[in-house]
Amino acid sequence: MTTKRTKYPSESLTLMNELVLPNDTNTLNNLMGGRLLHWMDICAAIAGQKHSNEIVVTASVDSVSFKEPIRLGDVVTLRAWVTRSFNSSMEVLIEVWAENIPRGEKVKCNEAYYTFVALDSRHKPVPVPELVPETEEEKRIYDGALRRRQVRLVLAGKMKPDEAVELKNLFV
Amino acid sequence: MTTKRTKYPSESLTLMNELVLPNDTNTLNNLMGGRLLHWMDICAAIAGQKHSNEIVVTASVDSVSFKEPIRLGDVVTLRAWVTRSFNSSMEVLIEVWAENIPRGEKVKCNEAYYTFVALDSRHKPVPVPELVPETEEEKRIYDGALRRRQVRLVLAGKMKPDEAVELKNLFV
Amino acid sequence: MTTKRTKYPSESLTLMNELVLPNDTNTLNNLMGGRLLHWMDICAAIAGQKHSNEIVVTASVDSVSFKEPIRLGDVVTLRAWVTRSFNSSMEVLIEVWAENIPRGEKVKCNEAYYTFVALDSRHKPVPVPELVPETEEEKRIYDGALRRRQVRLVLAGKMKPDEAVELKNLFV
Amino acid sequence: MTTKRTKYPSESLTLMNELVLPNDTNTLNNLMGGRLLHWMDICAAIAGQKHSNEIVVTASVDSVSFKEPIRLGDVVTLRAWVTRSFNSSMEVLIEVWAENIPRGEKVKCNEAYYTFVALDSRHKPVPVPELVPETEEEKRIYDGALRRRQVRLVLAGKMKPDEAVELKNLFV
Amino acid sequence: MTTKRTKYPSESLTLMNELVLPNDTNTLNNLMGGRLLHWMDICAAIAGQKHSNEIVVTASVDSVSFKEPIRLGDVVTLRAWVTRSFNSSMEVLIEVWAENIPRGEKVKCNEAYYTFVALDSRHKPVPVPELVPETEEEKRIYDGALRRRQVRLVLAGKMKPDEAVELKNLFV
Amino acid sequence: MTTKRTKYPSESLTLMNELVLPNDTNTLNNLMGGRLLHWMDICAAIAGQKHSNEIVVTASVDSVSFKEPIRLGDVVTLRAWVTRSFNSSMEVLIEVWAENIPRGEKVKCNEAYYTFVALDSRHKPVPVPELVPETEEEKRIYDGALRRRQVRLVLAGKMKPDEAVELKNLFV
Repeated sequence: MTTKRTKYPSESLTLMNELVLPNDTNTLNNLMGGRLLHWMDICAAIAGQKHSNEIVVTASVDSVSFKEPIRLGDVVTLRAWVTRSFNSSMEVLIEVWAENIPRGEKVKCNEAYYTFVALDSRHKPVPVPELVPETEEEKRIYDGALRRRQVRLVLAGKMKPDEAVELKNLFV
Repeated sequence: MTTKRTKYPSESLTLMNELVLPNDTNTLNNLMGGRLLHWMDICAAIAGQKHSNEIVVTASVDSVSFKEPIRLGDVVTLRAWVTRSFNSSMEVLIEVWAENIPRGEKVKCNEAYYTFVALDSRHKPVPVPELVPETEEEKRIYDGALRRRQVRLVLAGKMKPDEAVELKNLFV
Repeated sequence: MTTKRTKYPSESLTLMNELVLPNDTNTLNNLMGGRLLHWMDICAAIAGQKHSNEIVVTASVDSVSFKEPIRLGDVVTLRAWVTRSFNSSMEVLIEVWAENIPRGEKVKCNEAYYTFVALDSRHKPVPVPELVPETEEEKRIYDGALRRRQVRLVLAGKMKPDEAVELKNLFV
Repeated sequence: MTTKRTKYPSESLTLMNELVLPNDTNTLNNLMGGRLLHWMDICAAIAGQKHSNEIVVTASVDSVSFKEPIRLGDVVTLRAWVTRSFNSSMEVLIEVWAENIPRGEKVKCNEAYYTFVALDSRHKPVPVPELVPETEEEKRIYDGALRRRQVRLVLAGKMKPDEAVELKNLFV
Repeated sequence: MTTKRTKYPSESLTLMNELVLPNDTNTLNNLMGGRLLHWMDICAAIAGQKHSNEIVVTASVDSVSFKEPIRLGDVVTLRAWVTRSFNSSMEVLIEVWAENIPRGEKVKCNEAYYTFVALDSRHKPVPVPELVPETEEEKRIYDGALRRRQVRLVLAGKMKPDEAVELKNLFV
Repeated sequence: MTTKRTKYPSESLTLMNELVLPNDTNTLNNLMGGRLLHWMDICAAIAGQKHSNEIVVTASVDSVSFKEPIRLGDVVTLRAWVTRSFNSSMEVLIEVWAENIPRGEKVKCNEAYYTFVALDSRHKPVPVPELVPETEEEKRIYDGALRRRQVRLVLAGKMKPDEAVELKNLFV
């Protein structure tokens, strides 16, 4: 088969803008965390589709912290791209900014890693192209992917902490 | 003031059922990960409100992995309770089951820890009651909360790995 | 066949919590009656599914009165259970509470009886297990079900008032 | 004050069409009962507003039975009008048809009585214009309103069965 | 075949009422233009279905201007009818009113022409009945349809301006 | 005051991706025209906000034709930028692509011009920066804006056809 075997991060880059509407907010008029996680999932899934040219399903979401409240009427900008691929799974980084355009304020609110698995037409996992980082930032994030993967496997109980070599190095 | 200073996990226990409708699903007819994270956020926030008797906002979500696809028409059961409190923040465990009732199948799909901060009427953090675990399971989860908190702080760049004493013990 | 032929009310007990969001409210910031009826329908349908282990469709809703306004930001708790079965149909009682958690207020707002019909895979009505009430309250509600059923049939024009024996006794 | 003191049913007549979309349906591809009750509530509330020229809130819904399944893609037509007024409350009749236009099929599916209370700007009940029925059908429905009101009061526990004079006559 | 070959405008007349809810509004509490265009599309599509007795898809929307802001809580009334048919396509006029019922204010906000194509069960365009205008207003609008169609074709680049005979007459 | 008096098209460029979900589609599983118009309105409004740094409201939508059906599961990409400003109003071009990523198909489906008015904090029209086109394409579209504006004014009955100088030249 002649499918392209490698891809660059820029090929999966996905941008999304959402306007915070009343139903997205809690009684403080701030965007609810769960709604943001939903938007992040859709944006990241599109990036995963672009990299794999397959249907993708969410396998995991890494720890997300909500630093800045996002207000009713703000424009939320999401930016996602595949940071590393592992056989049939892909790690995607999603960054989130909130912008009050009339006030000229734009702050970075969040970033998170989602992992997706690519499925073929029979809903079975299928190999995805290898990711080749280009810029310094892409290489740095690519290199950290192994460690983040071990965190996920340890937290999911699928790897013993002392087998997580990359992770252990963090503490030594 | 005479606010109750301690609370039991059972006092914040929150149950929620949702029916998976077409708009909640992807093109495979499976519940989208982001929609589930949204429901988990609402269920956990209610638990946080019950413990604190205050308005709460999501501070962070720990790593979540999606093991089992949840299908269109399934009944999703969410069960959340506060597992430990830290001054003005609370850790909440949410467990998720999917049930195909006509087939008599019910499987546990997910569990995750969300962290919430309680806010007073001026939107400032406010102390919450201390959590007192009662059962063996509650005590075990309570004890793990310090370690999970260090993971969050390390991952958010707010604590250096070698200060994360509880976490380091995992690898030694 | 070996399907279980009787069930207890507790086997269909279904709890649901919903947060009142802006789009659920009218211009007075109160939950709209129709939205609540929708939530009650979903909660009651899940109870009907649990009792019958079949797909269920709403056959009727009894008179519902809305006593207490439910406010934006309130937590609505719904509690449904099958109160009596009639061949392929089931009567389900749904009780509704609204809770302003920061203020520590919780009031019972509504209760209503919905009736569901269980359908098999060809969408034909199918017999459901007999309901066996256990507690005093369950027995009292079970006993009233015949009378409520006659009200429904009379109101739907399917029974003549003077055939509604249970109902007539109310007025004599 | 010079507010108009009487109104005809035709002055509150409200028509509404809705298209049944995927998210309105259950796993049988039929419109969910709760969604229909929600649409009926909105249509009836608009009729109540037209009669009273005030904000209105739902006070009660009479028994509704769902005779005909309504299918995905059907056009639902709702028709509501005030049938009688009582001081600050109004009874509204809502009739529902489902139409599969390509097949040329249109069936009446439901009808129900909703009761609304008119509120002034301080959210207090306020008198509404008296309803004057014109046609024979309007007069017949107007005459039945007292009996239906007694059913509501008896069912809500606000009137003793033997005080419900209109209702008793039904059984004698 | 014996399908009816002509139809009157009154046969496709479609009325729709919508209540402006929080999620339909921007931060000024006015109905968003895009939401209104969505409602107009649904209302016009039902009119197109009624005329053709087929499934219809939107082919184009003519220029729409938003003159009057529509407020949260307003009742929006839409009125659509087929104004002319062209082989398998139909032009539909949709008029929009906004009403603040408690204040007794009702203003016409918009009107627009949508064009729909009728499709048969294999999703191929299918001829629709000819439209026969009856009233003076219907005839006037029917006569203008050719000119509007030329505007559409010129704007879509499917007709050269100097072939648009009806349109040219406007400027000469 | 020192507000920036001119802006480039690239400063208002806004990208948006949306996933076509079941509730966005008609019974043919194609995206409904009205839903797309809604997304286009949100994307274009964000572009208008970026250019003006003010709250904006939709003033008009030019003729839109729907050439290509967009399917359930497709990724819709919207790209909007301000093409010319007129005192307090801005013309925005929105282009729409639909992409079936697993099949590697991406087609341009639509383009349309929306016009927005910028409002200050008292909801009054406020001047916006002048637009300065840079590329050849931007200049070409900028030049056509006067003619499109005359089409709008003529169609809205605010300008007599023979005063529409730019437009007349099209036909001579």
